[in-house]
Amino acid sequence: MPAISLKGQTMPESPIRKLAPFAEAAKFQGKEVYHLNIGQPDIKTPPEAIDAVRNSDLEVLEYSPSEGFASYRKALAAYYAQHDLHVTSDDLIVTTGGSEAILFAMGAICDPGDEVIIPEPFYANYNGFSVNAGVTVVPVTAQIEDAFALPPIEDFEALISPNTKAIMICNPGNPTGYLYTPQELEALRDLVLKHDLYLIADEVYREFAYGDNHHMSILSLEGLEENAIVIDSVSKRYSMCGARIGCVISRNSALMATILKFAQARLSPPTMAQIAAEAALDVDESYYAEVKAEYTRRRDILVDGINQIEGVVCPKPSGSFYVIAQLPVDNAERFAQWLLSAFSHENKTLMIAPAEGFYATPGMGQNQIRLAYVLEEDKLKKCVELLQIALQQYPGTHY
Amino acid sequence: MPAISLKGQTMPESPIRKLAPFAEAAKFQGKEVYHLNIGQPDIKTPPEAIDAVRNSDLEVLEYSPSEGFASYRKALAAYYAQHDLHVTSDDLIVTTGGSEAILFAMGAICDPGDEVIIPEPFYANYNGFSVNAGVTVVPVTAQIEDAFALPPIEDFEALISPNTKAIMICNPGNPTGYLYTPQELEALRDLVLKHDLYLIADEVYREFAYGDNHHMSILSLEGLEENAIVIDSVSKRYSMCGARIGCVISRNSALMATILKFAQARLSPPTMAQIAAEAALDVDESYYAEVKAEYTRRRDILVDGINQIEGVVCPKPSGSFYVIAQLPVDNAERFAQWLLSAFSHENKTLMIAPAEGFYATPGMGQNQIRLAYVLEEDKLKKCVELLQIALQQYPGTHY
Repeated sequence: MPAISLKGQTMPESPIRKLAPFAEAAKFQGKEVYHLNIGQPDIKTPPEAIDAVRNSDLEVLEYSPSEGFASYRKALAAYYAQHDLHVTSDDLIVTTGGSEAILFAMGAICDPGDEVIIPEPFYANYNGFSVNAGVTVVPVTAQIEDAFALPPIEDFEALISPNTKAIMICNPGNPTGYLYTPQELEALRDLVLKHDLYLIADEVYREFAYGDNHHMSILSLEGLEENAIVIDSVSKRYSMCGARIGCVISRNSALMATILKFAQARLSPPTMAQIAAEAALDVDESYYAEVKAEYTRRRDILVDGINQIEGVVCPKPSGSFYVIAQLPVDNAERFAQWLLSAFSHENKTLMIAPAEGFYATPGMGQNQIRLAYVLEEDKLKKCVELLQIALQQYPGTHY
Repeated sequence: MPAISLKGQTMPESPIRKLAPFAEAAKFQGKEVYHLNIGQPDIKTPPEAIDAVRNSDLEVLEYSPSEGFASYRKALAAYYAQHDLHVTSDDLIVTTGGSEAILFAMGAICDPGDEVIIPEPFYANYNGFSVNAGVTVVPVTAQIEDAFALPPIEDFEALISPNTKAIMICNPGNPTGYLYTPQELEALRDLVLKHDLYLIADEVYREFAYGDNHHMSILSLEGLEENAIVIDSVSKRYSMCGARIGCVISRNSALMATILKFAQARLSPPTMAQIAAEAALDVDESYYAEVKAEYTRRRDILVDGINQIEGVVCPKPSGSFYVIAQLPVDNAERFAQWLLSAFSHENKTLMIAPAEGFYATPGMGQNQIRLAYVLEEDKLKKCVELLQIALQQYPGTHY
């Protein structure tokens, strides 16, 4: 049998997927499983988005331009302008999800052996994209005690080598929910300018900023025009994860010309989903307001609830719909497996994502989990109750 | 300004896209441009495919499983069984177009520095995927005098090095239209087994085999179970290029487990388009029969027509909807530009793809072009007439 590539052998398995067989077994046993493990919102997609496809008079499902439909790119630029981010449609290329936007950005700036510095814990699939591109992720650890604020800028600078091509952040964060402050972003700006690096910001959770907090895009940082690369997606904003429509944004025209070549090689992003995404841009401001109010209530129920449990530490973040919690357990992955295989209360259990897979530093995050508050309030209350009872029963709990 | 990657600098521009500014200028001048340059069929998508999306009761556009919807994979396996290709749904993973299927296959078997042997001329985007993966394409030249039949198997064997991981073919061929014979495929089978290589076959034009000719899939070659990788797509089969739904097929379970990790990193293929693609599988056999009859007529009009032109050589192939023609011109790229910028007849002109970009060997194909017969018969007749007149007028024509 011919060999598998080294790249293929080292491609990480998703930390979430590893638990899937346990979840299937739990369901097979008849247990009801509450999924706090994935970022698949239960919020309805704006009906106008799906209706736009239903009502379209498409007869031939043709390629779109490789950079995306001109009308959608223009509408997207207008959307960013509404958020005081002044980009033209030439500054953005439509991608097949935020995933492809990351692949294109990495491909355009990194060769095998290059390094990208990323605060950990970070979105686990960044590892997959890095292995695929032969790029090394260099982690800087953010601390749960600091609510996962940006690590000291000196920690970043100490890691910069001749191979460093970029610093990459997710803002607001998956998996931390942390929303970076203007001061933190300005410090990163100064650092990348000093060392002539790119700053990549995954801003797919932009609209999910709660309370009086506002999201600040790196596109609004002065002086960063040639260095800023933004990753965006409609997946979370409009609960359209299955559309697979994202975009990559930069005012660096040489960079965008390079990314266009990657886009041309794969021909086109999906046609029907672009029609839906363009229509979604017309949703009323009240849609965002309702979604934010809903997630704020959910966050408060979940975070306030689990912080009442003995030994649990969970900073309350200002953005996205994830939190990282520290549990009084020997090992969060074992606990997650145990929840699915051995535990149930009223025939219910919950599925959580062990946080270790969100760290690149070996051994980090072993007693942490990521929770996505993508369930209705009543279910989240039940999840808090289940977690409390489970921690009382789990043999590896130590208070 | 931070640097562009070497990979990004060497990513080839699509040979088709290079002419786009000339085409825009021609349209701006008010000329009608007949597009023989791209494989965007004008055939209607089966209405049941688009209707399936229109009539779906989707409310949340969720992720599908990374490997594709179970129902679609099952239906796909049944479709292959109808073609006497016995695969189970575990042997296939749904991808975002055939493009992603190629990227996944290359990623799973090749590391940077590895080599893939491909008969040239070949689909130009194979170059882009190779540069992206750091893989070297090693070309074996097929000859127009042989109607682009498989080059002698000794030519392949002479190029096998310790870095060779696969031989890749497109069958029926883009850009040649050539349909490989069972004998040719068996020779390739014996060679890859002898040297423990993968055989990748891009079979997206499977249904487009004309006359008494039948397409033979490498999946039907005995003994090749662990070595065969098939790339497929709904783009051409159902005129659904914009759906971006393809799949990668192999009975090698270790390989498929590796490809699944690449699939998981990008989360999911598009949801709505999978619904359309699943419905398309239900089209009546008469759909294929009508499409084949239509393309057969078009091929005959185009190929018979241009072979009447002095100095033009164009083998009549048995598959796909492309042909390569040799023209009596100094340089096909200059001629293609001239057609758009300087030529018109009755205010009409045509856009063709210079074939040089389909060769990896420098200097090859400079007087060849690729034509896609994706226009109605009347328009194709007009194209033949335009080509004849243009060749009479072009200053670089030499008979």
